[in-house]
Amino acid sequence: MTRGRLYALLQAGAPGARARAWRSLHHAMVTAGVVILLAETTQSLRQAHGLALAIGFFAVAGFFAAEYALRLFLAAAAPGAEHRSRWRVRFAQAFSLAGFFDLLGAVPLPLGLLFGAKDASLFGFVWTFKFVRYSPGLASLKRVVSHARQELFAVLLGFGIVLVSAASLVYLFERDAQPQTFGSIPKALWWAVETLTTTGYGDAVPETFFGRFLASLVMVSGILVFALWAGILATGYAEEMRRRSFLRTWDLVAKVPFFQGAGAATIAEVARLLRPRDYQAGATVMRRGEAGESMYFIVSGEVQIRLRPQPVKMAAGEFFGEIALLTGSARSATVVTLMPTTLLVLDIAHFRELLGRQPELARIIRDEALRRLDQTAGKGAPREAAEAAETPQREEGGETITQPSEGFDRL
Amino acid sequence: MTRGRLYALLQAGAPGARARAWRSLHHAMVTAGVVILLAETTQSLRQAHGLALAIGFFAVAGFFAAEYALRLFLAAAAPGAEHRSRWRVRFAQAFSLAGFFDLLGAVPLPLGLLFGAKDASLFGFVWTFKFVRYSPGLASLKRVVSHARQELFAVLLGFGIVLVSAASLVYLFERDAQPQTFGSIPKALWWAVETLTTTGYGDAVPETFFGRFLASLVMVSGILVFALWAGILATGYAEEMRRRSFLRTWDLVAKVPFFQGAGAATIAEVARLLRPRDYQAGATVMRRGEAGESMYFIVSGEVQIRLRPQPVKMAAGEFFGEIALLTGSARSATVVTLMPTTLLVLDIAHFRELLGRQPELARIIRDEALRRLDQTAGKGAPREAAEAAETPQREEGGETITQPSEGFDRL
Amino acid sequence: MTRGRLYALLQAGAPGARARAWRSLHHAMVTAGVVILLAETTQSLRQAHGLALAIGFFAVAGFFAAEYALRLFLAAAAPGAEHRSRWRVRFAQAFSLAGFFDLLGAVPLPLGLLFGAKDASLFGFVWTFKFVRYSPGLASLKRVVSHARQELFAVLLGFGIVLVSAASLVYLFERDAQPQTFGSIPKALWWAVETLTTTGYGDAVPETFFGRFLASLVMVSGILVFALWAGILATGYAEEMRRRSFLRTWDLVAKVPFFQGAGAATIAEVARLLRPRDYQAGATVMRRGEAGESMYFIVSGEVQIRLRPQPVKMAAGEFFGEIALLTGSARSATVVTLMPTTLLVLDIAHFRELLGRQPELARIIRDEALRRLDQTAGKGAPREAAEAAETPQREEGGETITQPSEGFDRL
Amino acid sequence: MTRGRLYALLQAGAPGARARAWRSLHHAMVTAGVVILLAETTQSLRQAHGLALAIGFFAVAGFFAAEYALRLFLAAAAPGAEHRSRWRVRFAQAFSLAGFFDLLGAVPLPLGLLFGAKDASLFGFVWTFKFVRYSPGLASLKRVVSHARQELFAVLLGFGIVLVSAASLVYLFERDAQPQTFGSIPKALWWAVETLTTTGYGDAVPETFFGRFLASLVMVSGILVFALWAGILATGYAEEMRRRSFLRTWDLVAKVPFFQGAGAATIAEVARLLRPRDYQAGATVMRRGEAGESMYFIVSGEVQIRLRPQPVKMAAGEFFGEIALLTGSARSATVVTLMPTTLLVLDIAHFRELLGRQPELARIIRDEALRRLDQTAGKGAPREAAEAAETPQREEGGETITQPSEGFDRL
Repeated sequence: MTRGRLYALLQAGAPGARARAWRSLHHAMVTAGVVILLAETTQSLRQAHGLALAIGFFAVAGFFAAEYALRLFLAAAAPGAEHRSRWRVRFAQAFSLAGFFDLLGAVPLPLGLLFGAKDASLFGFVWTFKFVRYSPGLASLKRVVSHARQELFAVLLGFGIVLVSAASLVYLFERDAQPQTFGSIPKALWWAVETLTTTGYGDAVPETFFGRFLASLVMVSGILVFALWAGILATGYAEEMRRRSFLRTWDLVAKVPFFQGAGAATIAEVARLLRPRDYQAGATVMRRGEAGESMYFIVSGEVQIRLRPQPVKMAAGEFFGEIALLTGSARSATVVTLMPTTLLVLDIAHFRELLGRQPELARIIRDEALRRLDQTAGKGAPREAAEAAETPQREEGGETITQPSEGFDRL
Repeated sequence: MTRGRLYALLQAGAPGARARAWRSLHHAMVTAGVVILLAETTQSLRQAHGLALAIGFFAVAGFFAAEYALRLFLAAAAPGAEHRSRWRVRFAQAFSLAGFFDLLGAVPLPLGLLFGAKDASLFGFVWTFKFVRYSPGLASLKRVVSHARQELFAVLLGFGIVLVSAASLVYLFERDAQPQTFGSIPKALWWAVETLTTTGYGDAVPETFFGRFLASLVMVSGILVFALWAGILATGYAEEMRRRSFLRTWDLVAKVPFFQGAGAATIAEVARLLRPRDYQAGATVMRRGEAGESMYFIVSGEVQIRLRPQPVKMAAGEFFGEIALLTGSARSATVVTLMPTTLLVLDIAHFRELLGRQPELARIIRDEALRRLDQTAGKGAPREAAEAAETPQREEGGETITQPSEGFDRL
Repeated sequence: MTRGRLYALLQAGAPGARARAWRSLHHAMVTAGVVILLAETTQSLRQAHGLALAIGFFAVAGFFAAEYALRLFLAAAAPGAEHRSRWRVRFAQAFSLAGFFDLLGAVPLPLGLLFGAKDASLFGFVWTFKFVRYSPGLASLKRVVSHARQELFAVLLGFGIVLVSAASLVYLFERDAQPQTFGSIPKALWWAVETLTTTGYGDAVPETFFGRFLASLVMVSGILVFALWAGILATGYAEEMRRRSFLRTWDLVAKVPFFQGAGAATIAEVARLLRPRDYQAGATVMRRGEAGESMYFIVSGEVQIRLRPQPVKMAAGEFFGEIALLTGSARSATVVTLMPTTLLVLDIAHFRELLGRQPELARIIRDEALRRLDQTAGKGAPREAAEAAETPQREEGGETITQPSEGFDRL
Repeated sequence: MTRGRLYALLQAGAPGARARAWRSLHHAMVTAGVVILLAETTQSLRQAHGLALAIGFFAVAGFFAAEYALRLFLAAAAPGAEHRSRWRVRFAQAFSLAGFFDLLGAVPLPLGLLFGAKDASLFGFVWTFKFVRYSPGLASLKRVVSHARQELFAVLLGFGIVLVSAASLVYLFERDAQPQTFGSIPKALWWAVETLTTTGYGDAVPETFFGRFLASLVMVSGILVFALWAGILATGYAEEMRRRSFLRTWDLVAKVPFFQGAGAATIAEVARLLRPRDYQAGATVMRRGEAGESMYFIVSGEVQIRLRPQPVKMAAGEFFGEIALLTGSARSATVVTLMPTTLLVLDIAHFRELLGRQPELARIIRDEALRRLDQTAGKGAPREAAEAAETPQREEGGETITQPSEGFDRL
């Protein structure tokens, strides 16, 4: 295996069985590290299994130290790194966020060698940070939090102002009644934090009238802080999700031959409505007799439509499942994937929106559905229903477009 | 009753009095089961009514065991099941989520027979899961949570990382001061959980300066976790609601003859603005003299407009209530349903949007309103107001369309 | 004062000084009632001021009983009530929600006569419900909660399922360790509630490993419940706000002569961008030298533009403040209201959107601004800036529209 | 330095090194004030460093008193103030919100002179309010909260109603069982507040069945209050963010020569998609070999494209980074700023939306990309990819526009 391949294998989201195996091993090691950390500090477990724990600790610590060395070595194989000095690249890697976490993960080994497994294992919690690199969800959240950092920070600042003010005032009100708990402002700050976050341990509780009145205000402010943060993050999160899903789908839509003749405006609109979905080989996409909730475009792979006289194969660029959406009848055939397949799913709600907004695309789908219904011996009722669904677009004023049967590129 | 009918009767959302009766019985049984569960563990109640409780327990447990057997038997009557082996279908039913809950619900009976009602009743809480099948709201929430599962899981992962790190650090800071509470990392984890969720029982409270500082950070992180989840779910929930309501309304709009001549684009737009509402026979839809907040399209059923000289009947496809929206006057007549009726309600805010976006539809409604005002002896003032509302769409450049009086299909 | 007028006076949102005075009296009485309630149960206060409190109680209780009688008497004067039997109307009033709160508010008087002021005052908290009728915000919130009631209820159902399950399991785990606190499922339910809501009093805390593990799950579920409710209500609230503000503004926009020639589509769009604002007579709308953040349309009333040689009056239908938005310069004059005035405010962000979407409207505003700048002795710089802002709408392809100087109706 | 310049220097967001230095000093002083406040009340620290703390206190207090005097003196130099009496302006300044905080900040000095540093330092928490003036995030939040104040207040009113009702009822249920804690309604109110905010100190816990049932309802209502506030603020916040970012970007877009020929509609749309970003001199905007996630328009400043044979300079009005978006290849050159530079960033997701909605703008960008690819020795593959991306806009029906190579103004 070349250096470049090994580098690619270690990246987040790398495809293939070997990359998956690596990630499983990595996650198992982190988990083992955490278990050892918990066990080492539990008297009874340490006494019973001290040696095993120490061995386990050094195994995990060694693994992460080795991984760090490997990553540093491979950094020069990163794409785009060829033109920069090898050591500069390694230096950059060491000081990126993920690189910093890798470095942290390597530290318990020397610590263990210096101070023994028991004390060093306390530092093992840093291994949990290594999950960050491999979690796409955490990456999204990081983007959201980082975009909204100015506003989150403003709330924190307001939080701080309330905190200091509340602590000063409660100190005034309570210092005589409870010198033990409210005898200085730093002590009062502790009360303010647990009250403003509505945690309320109960180890510091105001007793005077003014103290309690103040506490009530602080608790209500606490709810406001929660609510402001929730509002900020909800807004940012919604935007991030829209962006991510649009990008992923756009790439796939642009790959489907069916859409390749369509203009950028159509692709952008369609990409907002479709959702990608991956299937293993042999998975059942739809089942005969079920209600039809969506239609499917094949991005890659192959499916088998299990029609009665003989099954039909469909490959990338074709679509299926549209008949049930148009006629409202149940699925007329079971569909199974023949190899790992990626589909774009068009939900019935979005299908109906599309009927209105993209009349041309709708017409192509409808014509194809009619052709298929004719072929399958034309059962009267559904055919008529599908024709009825083909309502003339009077208000669009458009001249009728005739008979493309396959895709936009035949227009 | 055939097997197929009995199967349909047991499904969620089945219509008809018999299905409603079944659901009432089902819910009553679950409630009874929970009451028995609570009573069995209360010393005084068990001593006083031990026998009654045991009988009750076996009645409820028997009921759910019988229901499970019935569902398994009926599974083969499910639509679409005819082509698959009877046992495969039953097997599939037994291992679906609802099927699993049904199975769980059947378990207390054999447990009760083996160990007695008292111990078995402890397992009765599983009966509460049976509500899941019949709650459309829970189904929506399940969709929302399942769509956002990747992000919710990412937050949980972050939650876990903070938890382990905080527990390790607080153990370092507090183990000497409070060996009882913070003597091991597992113990410290308990503190971390109740602090990060801002529950704060108060049984574990840091006392050192660094411990308290760390605790403050953990509490604030807890608020962030709340806020992130709230943001994620708010986004997903808004999307799910839009989808569900669009689908339900689209189906109804497409059924109203008034809209059948309109194109798919118009239907999709109208469906986004209307809201369906069901009325019992004899219900009052609007009352003379009230302020007019909406107009109504009849999907199915029949209403009576209680006009003075003689009342008027309206059936599916007609609309009413538009005059008050156009003139701003109070309702001029009371409207009562004559049979169970489904209406589509157009709120005044959406009515006004529609005036702008669908000028043709608006014109039809206005012309009809003018015709009706002329018929009812033409009181001057409101007529003029309605005409004034018919402002010419100058900026649309459109030639005036003349006089369709009933619907799009007359155009 | 006629019965009808008196009826109108008591309604929420009634205009005029007398209605405001009535509401102030009403709110003062509720407040007095609550103060008496608090004082009556405080030993020291009751002993010192027993008689005064009793007198106060009967005054407040008498007031609300009299109000109830008055409302019942006036119910027959409600608009639309003429055609129904007087007693039926009163009956309906008595059983509406607000009527029920009024009835509750009348109850303390007979209670006081029967059992004395001290015991009856405990029931005085019902007077707080009387605020509900007069708070427009609470009315909005009621609409939001009621629209989302199905989903809120679904979350509550899920809450209940988790509650019963958690209580059953924690009872199993903890009953031997802490029979006092977890000795029965009802007792365990108390723990479950305070844990699931993350309140955590600390009077019931699990001690076993499984109990604590379960508690952790329950706390995290609690966050999920919060988040789901927040998501549901955020969605519903956003929709309600959009509806309310659109309706209010639409009514005002339709009243402004300037917009009366514009089509329904323009009015609907403009109504989405403007915000109404009421000013007292003599209020300063803008101040010379400030930065310009918005322009204003006069709905009703009159303002004075304090220009140097001599001030200018403007009345309903005119607009001002557009120059600063177009030129980016500071306000060139102070504007003061001459009588109570309602303005529609167009924020600079929305002004810019409008420039693009409603080119005709934008042109009218720009032409007027140029005319005004010419009149005020034409200082070179701002004039040019305003002309530059008048970028030709090349991509719109529209032929230039010439010189309307006042409003759409001059076109 | 003139008075006017000094005035400008003290405003929030003032540019330049001197303004930044002033803000750093200001924030350092606030921080020092808070530290002294914390230290003064801590027995051990006060005894050890009493004199130093007192000196520090008078230094900070003197600083803020002097700042207040300076601001009052400079108020007459505010823009727009020339026409008003000097003392009226100062009076207005003293009673604005920021002016009030400044006044508060000046108070500790006289207090210290009268009562000594120790007691006066307790009042030092008011200095934290001085951050408000300089935090743009807090300003945004203030706008959000102030716009939604009616609804937030409605929730508070509901909060109050629940509070009084719950306290009255719990007093009824618990007064006999726990006269110490629930012996009067004011005492019960304390319990109600800490329960409704889900703080739960644990110093007041109901013990009777009805008391606990009531407490459960109160806790659940508490979650509802949280959720309502979160919903209200999320809605308001989303709107405020959209407004702020639109305004900021619009100003910048209008400055870019490239867009100056475009109509207001295009600018408004583009402003919604771009995000401004400031770079220091010498910063790396993109790196060769990275994946391309966005393209850039230069608002002001200068960048260097490090192409191989010889680097190219670009200045305000030009754009770069579009090739990677069109071809999907990695960045072909590193880009570094040569002076402080402001760029407008177009994310790839928005770039693709723009391709559809603004075909003309898209064409200009594509043509320029092709020209550049030709110049850089025309590597076959990427050129073709870029041409393929130039899909004909068939459904737009537009005649092909020929060859503008620089911007809209060349059309």
